[in-house]
Amino acid sequence: MKHFRSLHDVKDIKALIRRAITIKRHALRNEALGRGKTLGLMFMNPSLRTRMSTQIAAANLGMQVAVLNAGRESWALEFNDEAVMDGEAVEHVREAAAVLGEYCDIIGLRSFAGLTDRAADYAETMQSAFVQNCSIPLLSLESATRHPLQSLADAMTIEEYATKLRPKVVLSWAPHPRALPQAVANSFAEWMGALDADLWITQPEGFDLATSFSSRARVCYDQDEALKDADFVYVKNWSSYDDYGQRGSGLDDWQISRQKMALTNDARLMHCLPVRRNVVVESALLDGPSSLVIPQAANRVYAAQAVLETMLTEMM
Amino acid sequence: MKHFRSLHDVKDIKALIRRAITIKRHALRNEALGRGKTLGLMFMNPSLRTRMSTQIAAANLGMQVAVLNAGRESWALEFNDEAVMDGEAVEHVREAAAVLGEYCDIIGLRSFAGLTDRAADYAETMQSAFVQNCSIPLLSLESATRHPLQSLADAMTIEEYATKLRPKVVLSWAPHPRALPQAVANSFAEWMGALDADLWITQPEGFDLATSFSSRARVCYDQDEALKDADFVYVKNWSSYDDYGQRGSGLDDWQISRQKMALTNDARLMHCLPVRRNVVVESALLDGPSSLVIPQAANRVYAAQAVLETMLTEMM
Amino acid sequence: MKHFRSLHDVKDIKALIRRAITIKRHALRNEALGRGKTLGLMFMNPSLRTRMSTQIAAANLGMQVAVLNAGRESWALEFNDEAVMDGEAVEHVREAAAVLGEYCDIIGLRSFAGLTDRAADYAETMQSAFVQNCSIPLLSLESATRHPLQSLADAMTIEEYATKLRPKVVLSWAPHPRALPQAVANSFAEWMGALDADLWITQPEGFDLATSFSSRARVCYDQDEALKDADFVYVKNWSSYDDYGQRGSGLDDWQISRQKMALTNDARLMHCLPVRRNVVVESALLDGPSSLVIPQAANRVYAAQAVLETMLTEMM
Repeated sequence: MKHFRSLHDVKDIKALIRRAITIKRHALRNEALGRGKTLGLMFMNPSLRTRMSTQIAAANLGMQVAVLNAGRESWALEFNDEAVMDGEAVEHVREAAAVLGEYCDIIGLRSFAGLTDRAADYAETMQSAFVQNCSIPLLSLESATRHPLQSLADAMTIEEYATKLRPKVVLSWAPHPRALPQAVANSFAEWMGALDADLWITQPEGFDLATSFSSRARVCYDQDEALKDADFVYVKNWSSYDDYGQRGSGLDDWQISRQKMALTNDARLMHCLPVRRNVVVESALLDGPSSLVIPQAANRVYAAQAVLETMLTEMM
Repeated sequence: MKHFRSLHDVKDIKALIRRAITIKRHALRNEALGRGKTLGLMFMNPSLRTRMSTQIAAANLGMQVAVLNAGRESWALEFNDEAVMDGEAVEHVREAAAVLGEYCDIIGLRSFAGLTDRAADYAETMQSAFVQNCSIPLLSLESATRHPLQSLADAMTIEEYATKLRPKVVLSWAPHPRALPQAVANSFAEWMGALDADLWITQPEGFDLATSFSSRARVCYDQDEALKDADFVYVKNWSSYDDYGQRGSGLDDWQISRQKMALTNDARLMHCLPVRRNVVVESALLDGPSSLVIPQAANRVYAAQAVLETMLTEMM
Repeated sequence: MKHFRSLHDVKDIKALIRRAITIKRHALRNEALGRGKTLGLMFMNPSLRTRMSTQIAAANLGMQVAVLNAGRESWALEFNDEAVMDGEAVEHVREAAAVLGEYCDIIGLRSFAGLTDRAADYAETMQSAFVQNCSIPLLSLESATRHPLQSLADAMTIEEYATKLRPKVVLSWAPHPRALPQAVANSFAEWMGALDADLWITQPEGFDLATSFSSRARVCYDQDEALKDADFVYVKNWSSYDDYGQRGSGLDDWQISRQKMALTNDARLMHCLPVRRNVVVESALLDGPSSLVIPQAANRVYAAQAVLETMLTEMM
């Protein structure tokens, strides 16, 4: 792969998952691979897991890491190619991306959906601007519509904890006090689809994901029915794609509770974190034996390392 | 030691001080000890000395360091176990700490006292939440009630500059425009007590430290009397423990001046920094030959390195 | 050189430029030179290129880097030596600089001009305070009146792209929505002067640089005349030195356009970045073949590395 923006950049998804699982046992097996190479990490939005896990993965490969928190440590960016830049933005992405391309060997970029202009978000304007203006591989740290490092860690986790060949995986919408992007859900649906998983997506009416992401899943508006006999429950909020960016109301009973988990086949609980306890999911579930959220987060290091290792290897 | 939260985590305080003094002469003597290991540093509050000295100490041991400035770069944290998280906090410390425990080998945490709820501060609720939810050693970078890396550096400094076996050490309260935590003073009193120093504490009425920290010191409300024949004067402001978090008023004459230092036995002046000149202490003293504030700050690197070296060694 | 604040700290400018050009081809040739040494980077102002390029340069030399973003991650600083510090500033530069001098081996400092007090800015009060209170070499990451790492990269770029022995170099003022320091322009004029370049400076009346910087250049208030037969056009805004810190108005036609570049000898376009497109310079020029802004920014790594390498070598 040159870039890592989505699974479409990955030649063999299953091989990449296996590579990540191997790295987990031998994290320093390639500690000189990235010698003299720099990973630049540009954060347009907050990050704990992505920030830490990607830094550690890069260091495990011997890379140097330089972090840039955009807009506070650096300059406000302009993305409009026609702009007369007499306002707040101090630098155009054309220069910023090109310069980072000169300084670094791989650039990681996190930029969330704005949730106001669906066409712009789904065109991945910000990520595309970096790819177009930067000569080096781009590693998505979550973009407007996808979070592929998360999905890779998710797929690793399911591979590790599955007790049957084709487990039933349910992606369930949950309530949230703020409107969130669809990126994690889109990306999870896309990866599960590509892996030919038995994926169900359950959400209230009006919260369907874009069909390009959900087409290989079974969509079900009845949460109880979807949860029945589930082996994995991936709980996640997302705002509406149809009524773009709206978070809905009166949907609090979509919270995943112990009672709802009782409908499943002793399913394991997944979430990408951060999670709002007792809003998205009952806190007792997160503290209980069914929860995989911590091992899932731990896998982020190995997911990032598998991708960086692949990029570095193909660069040589 | 597993954790380093206070001297109660240290088996042999004098041996740790000696180790720090040795490291000062041979900073790179163990430069491969931390290979492949990560120190995560989580700052809930600003930091110059702690931030820099701990990073350098870790690098001297070959560790990788990943810094997280909470609440700006990352997510606002919830600490209440019963919370319905529909407000500002995006992530619960249970998940945040557990995830950092997966990513790192040692986690450093700085979290100041809130100074509104004494019971919560003195229960060290935030530090305890990390320890309870995180599987790895915790290195205190200053907590609500203690600053043990500072105290270790302070003890090193007194060991280095003492010209008699049992010098008279005076911890003197000083005025300050803002209410500050008791952490540095508590911790210094605790370490000096454990080292059986001839410690005096002088402060205005109403500013007594908690007796659990000050019980081995001689408390004196007359600053002049306390300063008499002192060999070391450690000046520091703290807000009231009794009238919790109040800073008092009309106490400007507690500032340490050249005139007051004339009462001492040519005492050396100590302060943990940052210090407000001409409020806490007369600036001429900081610029004069009696001041130890810079060597004291310099010792922070070796204090941190002695603790990290001990943790890494015991981990193997 | 001990410090690197301006070209006056450099023994042989041409040798330094050659060294930087050599490093560009052999970036890891001295990857152990900085082993066990720490570069502290203190940013009082935002930075993208300087932040990233200096970190990478230091890492290429095997140094550890510790970054401090002043005022947010750390403490607000006081610079007045007589101050009674009962206000916002928590720490005096005397202590902060001295402590950084203990922790690091080289300290990088970025601090822009305030643009209100010309005497203070041109006395370089902040940089001087660091130099006076810090025992280690200071690397300017842009000060109130100069940006020497930028000038070194600029000189490298002209050396690399010049097609004649003594090209005509034109530094042209351009409009900008906000008042900017004179640092980049001053420094460029100073370096070109020292290199005996055929330097022209063109600007509106009232925007003359201080003569101490511009004395070796030919000053011309007619932009068209200055641009005639130019081989390099360095476009840059600066606020007025005479009417200190004022940005002027009604000067939009000083923007560098394709039409104006047609007056030159197929000149190459330079700018230090960040640049406001269609305000300072027509965006088509930045995207066209005459632009050197990206290679110029890329050279910042090698400029920083040449200076750090020199400092480290002379330290041994």
